[in-house]
Amino acid sequence: MIPKDAAIRLNPEDIPKKWYNLMADLPKKPDPPMNPRTGKPAGPEDLSPLFCDSILRQEVSLEKHIRIPEEVRENLIYLNRPAPLQRAYRLERYLKTPAKIYFKREDMSPLGSHKGNTALAQAYYNMKDGVENLTTETGAGQWGTALAMSCNLFGIGCTVFMVRGSYDQKPARKTVMNLYNATVHASPSDQTEYGRRVLKATPNTVGSLGIAISEACDMAIHQKNTKYALGSVLNHVMLHQTVIGLETIEQMKIGEIEPDCMIACAGGGSNFAGFAFPLIGEKIKGKTDCEFLAAESDAAPSMTSGKYKYDLGDTGGFTPELMMYTMGHDFIPSPVHAGGLRYHGMAPLVSAALDQGFMTARSYSQPDTFRAGKIFAETEGIIAAPESCHAIKAAIDKALEYKASKEEKTIVFCLSGHGLLDLNGYEKFLAGKLEESAV
Amino acid sequence: MIPKDAAIRLNPEDIPKKWYNLMADLPKKPDPPMNPRTGKPAGPEDLSPLFCDSILRQEVSLEKHIRIPEEVRENLIYLNRPAPLQRAYRLERYLKTPAKIYFKREDMSPLGSHKGNTALAQAYYNMKDGVENLTTETGAGQWGTALAMSCNLFGIGCTVFMVRGSYDQKPARKTVMNLYNATVHASPSDQTEYGRRVLKATPNTVGSLGIAISEACDMAIHQKNTKYALGSVLNHVMLHQTVIGLETIEQMKIGEIEPDCMIACAGGGSNFAGFAFPLIGEKIKGKTDCEFLAAESDAAPSMTSGKYKYDLGDTGGFTPELMMYTMGHDFIPSPVHAGGLRYHGMAPLVSAALDQGFMTARSYSQPDTFRAGKIFAETEGIIAAPESCHAIKAAIDKALEYKASKEEKTIVFCLSGHGLLDLNGYEKFLAGKLEESAV
Repeated sequence: MIPKDAAIRLNPEDIPKKWYNLMADLPKKPDPPMNPRTGKPAGPEDLSPLFCDSILRQEVSLEKHIRIPEEVRENLIYLNRPAPLQRAYRLERYLKTPAKIYFKREDMSPLGSHKGNTALAQAYYNMKDGVENLTTETGAGQWGTALAMSCNLFGIGCTVFMVRGSYDQKPARKTVMNLYNATVHASPSDQTEYGRRVLKATPNTVGSLGIAISEACDMAIHQKNTKYALGSVLNHVMLHQTVIGLETIEQMKIGEIEPDCMIACAGGGSNFAGFAFPLIGEKIKGKTDCEFLAAESDAAPSMTSGKYKYDLGDTGGFTPELMMYTMGHDFIPSPVHAGGLRYHGMAPLVSAALDQGFMTARSYSQPDTFRAGKIFAETEGIIAAPESCHAIKAAIDKALEYKASKEEKTIVFCLSGHGLLDLNGYEKFLAGKLEESAV
Repeated sequence: MIPKDAAIRLNPEDIPKKWYNLMADLPKKPDPPMNPRTGKPAGPEDLSPLFCDSILRQEVSLEKHIRIPEEVRENLIYLNRPAPLQRAYRLERYLKTPAKIYFKREDMSPLGSHKGNTALAQAYYNMKDGVENLTTETGAGQWGTALAMSCNLFGIGCTVFMVRGSYDQKPARKTVMNLYNATVHASPSDQTEYGRRVLKATPNTVGSLGIAISEACDMAIHQKNTKYALGSVLNHVMLHQTVIGLETIEQMKIGEIEPDCMIACAGGGSNFAGFAFPLIGEKIKGKTDCEFLAAESDAAPSMTSGKYKYDLGDTGGFTPELMMYTMGHDFIPSPVHAGGLRYHGMAPLVSAALDQGFMTARSYSQPDTFRAGKIFAETEGIIAAPESCHAIKAAIDKALEYKASKEEKTIVFCLSGHGLLDLNGYEKFLAGKLEESAV
């Protein structure tokens, strides 16, 4: 017999109709972004060169629920939403734990990760506001891929500045972006003044995410009808990702699942926020005592080793200062395969939730997380993204803690993406070559 | 509003309970396999060194429905079965066709293709019959990946002989197989007598599928408690794949879809058979006049340019002779990226269905199919496997024919897999480098 909770699926019409905004429920509102030049709170005039009006309104909204436009809902089907909630029976058996383990499957998007949830919304609002081109940066390429597909669906242009090191060594995601009709430049490039300056100073540089962000902003500011898109950190990105958690709540009702611990990986914070915020809202209201655990990389452990303070969002100083847990904007993380977890800071909303005691965080090493990913592939058959392996590692640790304390508790974690374009990381792990490079 | 037929999903309990066996309904039974040494029909004694009893019984079964063991059904969830049936609204709009286009999504398996449907069943039956190891060959690696995961789920060993050229140049799928605990040897290898002989004669060979099959058979015959597994061509493989078509029939009922043309790609024939056979059974009984179209590669056009005759299933002569459409067992196809469509023959059951007039076939060139894949990625957001691009190309051609004749007809095609591990083929296509190497 196939158990009822083996895989809880929803139908396309069950795609959420509203996003959830944690800002409305947080007892203490987070401190606002600051303009580093004036030392005053950043206003719309500081951000409008980069973002369209609809996005800026969402960025500062205090509304609890924001309607998802039908055009966005219809296109979320292309990301295979609603995504299944699945039970990890074989992983439970392998661990011999009394705990139940469920996971939400963001790996089933054709984009390979959860990034499309906000990319679609951002492309839509920019299209509605008359923007004709979006620029962005990408490291390994997951965010660039998501924005490329989304811009293509809504018929606007997309220019991606891809860190040169990745551009040269990992052509696969560049090909994906090209298939979605995006223009991809190796960064630093000769397309922007900022890029030309960097190229002149260091012609052989492999680039960095900081340089790529600066080029994307530079082009957005100077090119007609062009805006910039960011894949994490900001409030509107957290908002768009809440479809993950809202679906999960519906699925937990259907499966009569009461979570004791919900886990997601966190780099900039969008996967964790999207998965956990709707339930953290319940916790704020005292309706659940579920624990919320963010799993970060020890290569950039902003929440477990950083400071809660104002810091720049990027390396070059194009962005406002944000109140967040941060390693410092000039921090250089070691080059772990989980590229999505190498950000120096943490989303202001996630930082506020941590500061106000509604969640906890743990950090994990690269070899430990790949080991968890290997166990997951063996038991559940799915090859997880290196980022997602951090959530798996945290879930395994929790399940073993519940085993030691003989508690029949329920863990629900978010599988943020698949690892089919990160197999070289797994290959090195299997060959025993990751231990050496461990942090 | 999200249209009802945008994506028709089923629940895990809707996974079919029985496979469908076309053999029972074919008006004229196909001629049996022959032992090339005796010139007589091959009996169980010819095949039992390679296959376990349960598999051999299915291979010759005339039963119309064969029960799917619960242990197999439960594990089909790991392949994300039931797979959605989705409407290609954006592709329809792009083509400005009055035709409706639906596609069945075999690309959502973590294995990336439909191959797991039979791999799971074969691993299960071999485990039940006390077999401890399965051997097989693989070219690009989709079949090897599927068998590796399936053996791992049922706790038996898996040894894969991977064509050396692929082993060296495409390490990604080797890594996937290793993650599923399979042993992968570059073929020719020093693990078998046959391999050692080939290595001695041609030490620098890049290998071939024919050599790899021979090594897998050699090991199955000579190693204790070891059998061989084949990913296409044979009757039991076609049988196991019918979950695809059986689910599709249920989904078409829900969506009130009456197909006029059903399309799948065909190399060895398992994707086409799995998708189309249950409906071809209805056609034999006169219950539908749907057209069934197999899309093959012009690199190995067995159905459109081959002969219907007895021929060996492999290059080296380890297998019986099969009655099938074939280019000849020593035919060497050009090295197209659609590795799954490079087989010299066609499954005997598919060949019989073609010979008896229940289906048709068309062949397509590599550049034309990648062009279709590019359109599909742009419109539907999914990057299809090069094999699946043949079905897409056929569907596009049909949709344009219906446009020319102004017919509001319905096309349903099978998307056999995704192309995320075949991006180098797309990269060459985008760079204009495939035209030159076209057949």
